[in-house]
Amino acid sequence: MIVEIVSTGDELISGNIVDTNASYLASKFLEIGMLVKRCNIVGDDKKEIQAVLKEISSRADIVVVTGGLGPTKDDLTAEIAAMVSKDSLIINKEALSAIQSFFEKKNLQMSEVNKKQACLPSKAIMLENDSGTAPGFYMNLGKSIFYFLPGVPFEMKEMFKNKVLPDIFKRFGIKQRLRSKITLFGVPESKAAQNLDGFENKFPNLQLGFRAAFPMIEIKLLSPAITDNVSGKIDLDNARDWILSKFDVAKIVSDKGLSMEEEVARLLIKKKKTIAVAESCTGGLISHLLTDVPGSSAYFLFSAVTYSNEAKINILNVKQDTIVEYGAVHQTTAEEMAKGVMEKAGADFGISTSGIAGPTGGSDEKPVGTICIGFAKKGFSTAKTYCLNFNDRARNKKIFAATCLNLLRKELL
Amino acid sequence: MIVEIVSTGDELISGNIVDTNASYLASKFLEIGMLVKRCNIVGDDKKEIQAVLKEISSRADIVVVTGGLGPTKDDLTAEIAAMVSKDSLIINKEALSAIQSFFEKKNLQMSEVNKKQACLPSKAIMLENDSGTAPGFYMNLGKSIFYFLPGVPFEMKEMFKNKVLPDIFKRFGIKQRLRSKITLFGVPESKAAQNLDGFENKFPNLQLGFRAAFPMIEIKLLSPAITDNVSGKIDLDNARDWILSKFDVAKIVSDKGLSMEEEVARLLIKKKKTIAVAESCTGGLISHLLTDVPGSSAYFLFSAVTYSNEAKINILNVKQDTIVEYGAVHQTTAEEMAKGVMEKAGADFGISTSGIAGPTGGSDEKPVGTICIGFAKKGFSTAKTYCLNFNDRARNKKIFAATCLNLLRKELL
Repeated sequence: MIVEIVSTGDELISGNIVDTNASYLASKFLEIGMLVKRCNIVGDDKKEIQAVLKEISSRADIVVVTGGLGPTKDDLTAEIAAMVSKDSLIINKEALSAIQSFFEKKNLQMSEVNKKQACLPSKAIMLENDSGTAPGFYMNLGKSIFYFLPGVPFEMKEMFKNKVLPDIFKRFGIKQRLRSKITLFGVPESKAAQNLDGFENKFPNLQLGFRAAFPMIEIKLLSPAITDNVSGKIDLDNARDWILSKFDVAKIVSDKGLSMEEEVARLLIKKKKTIAVAESCTGGLISHLLTDVPGSSAYFLFSAVTYSNEAKINILNVKQDTIVEYGAVHQTTAEEMAKGVMEKAGADFGISTSGIAGPTGGSDEKPVGTICIGFAKKGFSTAKTYCLNFNDRARNKKIFAATCLNLLRKELL
Repeated sequence: MIVEIVSTGDELISGNIVDTNASYLASKFLEIGMLVKRCNIVGDDKKEIQAVLKEISSRADIVVVTGGLGPTKDDLTAEIAAMVSKDSLIINKEALSAIQSFFEKKNLQMSEVNKKQACLPSKAIMLENDSGTAPGFYMNLGKSIFYFLPGVPFEMKEMFKNKVLPDIFKRFGIKQRLRSKITLFGVPESKAAQNLDGFENKFPNLQLGFRAAFPMIEIKLLSPAITDNVSGKIDLDNARDWILSKFDVAKIVSDKGLSMEEEVARLLIKKKKTIAVAESCTGGLISHLLTDVPGSSAYFLFSAVTYSNEAKINILNVKQDTIVEYGAVHQTTAEEMAKGVMEKAGADFGISTSGIAGPTGGSDEKPVGTICIGFAKKGFSTAKTYCLNFNDRARNKKIFAATCLNLLRKELL
């Protein structure tokens, strides 16, 4: 089965927007066992879109086209689909009433230009858009079935999941596949691949994928298209257990595919514990990550971003002597920060960071990438120093934050 | 001039990675006045890459191909380029010595597989890679000049800027264009476009582009390829002034294209002022943004993320009565937070947020999207309430943070 994707829009070929639609669609096709053969990106250029659709219609089985369904004169997709199939545009009554009811639901007046969006090739079948005004449609062109969807990612995804996939399943007799995801921290991608050598021989029916979501690694597992959910699940579980056995348990963040902050949040909620954070070089990133998880007010009490020494001393009760003797970037300082923030907030745990994210501020003794992480709980505190330099301030902040959260995660296990 | 881009790699057509290389290259070509005609994404599939290169070599003038130059057996690009041009692979001596010296500089042993990376088509000219082991190369195929670059974005960008662009300039007699960028906050993209109606007639030589970098709008200006830098600069400055005149001054964040946090940082440094932040619903995002700007320790003293009421009271000296009477999400609370954090940190300014980012926690009286922003300076404090709901926790946090920073920015003007 040859699958191709076409993304249209001047904003894509001018580099103003990165095309995330193609990537999303490719991953969804992979989940049903189809590797996309080619993605094609073209501007809002009638001749070029026409050429691409013609070429593809002679070689692909399934094609998804995104973009160009809006109400303005740049939106040419329906017209071009009609041209390529030597069809004519007519007002599609279903599409018109879908657009009308979209505006009615929002209590808005439908404007004349939106009527254009109901003009579809006469052979096309309308795909309703529940979250926008642009209906999609599908039709045969050459040897392919073409699905035309809007370019707005949110609308496109909804329609692909709810309208296109069910049609593909029915049309080609395909079944949804089972999935499993594992997240790792502290394992280089090449090492992860090496550890899983032999997977293909052992589990020939399953598909294995890696994704580096810095600073994490995601391992994805996909069952073959199955008729029997029970045995499919057993296969997948066996493979997952085999993969888990290949890694140091401490490196496995989640066997359910959660991100570091989601897993930490899950553990804190499960154990009914609260947390306070003292950040220096991570500058609020740890707090931002933890509070990105909905419901974080259940466990997140307080975080202090203390860049200045005064703030470390006044807010976190770090001893002036400690800073004078060791400086801000030191294990002893980090340990006192963690203890101080825990006590200040009345939290069960305190974690802290103090280090050098760069690009400046490093020295021979404490180079860019030096990070001291403190941890405190009732009656106990400790700290550790790491050197983790990725030559980029933003990446350094990310790996510092993940290293700190990982320490908390291991404590919560 | 027809320009096409080819991105290769199984990770791209499986949806594991979004192809940012094509978008980067497209924007760089636009800067020299060339709109990319088509981007093609294919997997590590010998037949498919061969087919794509052949097709393109009959229609494009300039082609950039990324990926497939690594040392493993999936890396097929050089071999395919040789096949398409009916050429043979030979060890390119320059490439070999470049790889060798890369390893020497890093004090690493070069492995046998890296030798493969020095095998290039005999007609190819090597492009040195200063930051990785994979050399690039360029050669004619059909009617096109093909530039082959590694897929690692960092390496690819360096090589494109430093090796490919200069070659294109020389080969086609093209000159670098002058650029100008303006950032706006609080203007919808459609409104921004409407305000600039008539630009094309007034400045027919200049190119205008929009980019929504939520929650900001970027307006980009590009001069035509010029021989005379002085008159080009005057044109660009005139157009920039015209654009600036079309917007409420308060909505213009930077006429130099700085982001909100960069502009706030610039103003704080210029005025030698310091800042402290009290965050509730933004959960550390404001601190994270401000500390992403290198050198932030000059103005950023302290930030407190006070989710719990106890933290608001104990750390920020918010009055218990205020919280009992008005609740955490209220102007009075936000105002006391801003004042408290400023005093605690001994900063010149204090800013604060308290609101409901969602998806839960909203009520009829205070729906999701409600945000109270506090501001304090010596002898003065105030607060304001906004309702800004974008139906997404992460987007709400972003717009809350930007709204708060914008208030500070206006104070600093």
